[in-house]
Amino acid sequence: MNHSDTQTAQKQVITPGELLEHWLGHRRVTRKVIQVFPEKEFFEYCIGGMRPFSKMVLELLRIAGPGMKEIVSGKMTEYKEEATEPESKEEFLRRWDLATGQVQTCWSELEAGDFHRKIKLFGQYEGTVISSIQYFIDNEIHHRAQGYVYLRALGIEPPAFYDRS
Amino acid sequence: MNHSDTQTAQKQVITPGELLEHWLGHRRVTRKVIQVFPEKEFFEYCIGGMRPFSKMVLELLRIAGPGMKEIVSGKMTEYKEEATEPESKEEFLRRWDLATGQVQTCWSELEAGDFHRKIKLFGQYEGTVISSIQYFIDNEIHHRAQGYVYLRALGIEPPAFYDRS
Repeated sequence: MNHSDTQTAQKQVITPGELLEHWLGHRRVTRKVIQVFPEKEFFEYCIGGMRPFSKMVLELLRIAGPGMKEIVSGKMTEYKEEATEPESKEEFLRRWDLATGQVQTCWSELEAGDFHRKIKLFGQYEGTVISSIQYFIDNEIHHRAQGYVYLRALGIEPPAFYDRS
Repeated sequence: MNHSDTQTAQKQVITPGELLEHWLGHRRVTRKVIQVFPEKEFFEYCIGGMRPFSKMVLELLRIAGPGMKEIVSGKMTEYKEEATEPESKEEFLRRWDLATGQVQTCWSELEAGDFHRKIKLFGQYEGTVISSIQYFIDNEIHHRAQGYVYLRALGIEPPAFYDRS
């Protein structure tokens, strides 16, 4: 960031680059939560009739990459690869990393002026680019926290919430 | 917002007013989660050695109002009232509403240029105003989601995550 960008940043709540880094930090935590789950429990363990953590992560995979692709392309994303459920944690992690790459690639195409653009995501969710991205991040935090409870119930220490490294 | 403000907003990721409304929406959901808990289970029910939901909400009460007061005053907040734990859900809700009022009052004192100011919150957490506020919101989503699992395990339908009304 040059001096002029820094000055502009000082007058903004958050810059596009900072928001991306914030999300990527959360994605690193979620990746660690997937990693720490035992293979069987990742796909099978549930509490109170909720979904296993694998199904929650599948939802996150169906949102982040495709959502960002739709935001930058303006076209409804096809759900081909994303619609199928990986059969191993290893494959989930591979898909997670692919989605992280998609988020980064799409982000590089966003301009500051894009965040208040009105969109109807996945053909049904009306909002703006920023409200949609906030939903993606919040929804990830929400479901990951449910994974934390599953891990605790299984006697496994989850990764620290505040460590985004 | 006048026309000039609207034009400025179009070039920002998010405006201060939008971020406040985003947080207040989350605070409304968390309030509903507190409300829907049965009195006894709010204080006693746990999974996997975690805290009961009352203790998590107490943590949120110790952060939002005092954190915002510290951000706008620059002075370490004293933990007097906030340090004591309410003994009923009704009292928790009263404190919740007080804290929401504090957040709103403090927010009105924030200028756009404040968000990148460096701070050391509660004497130990180094960051900026915006990174601190993001932590407050994310931490609320995180613990509230754990409350969702407790509710599901108790056979109680939690409020919809996406309904911020």
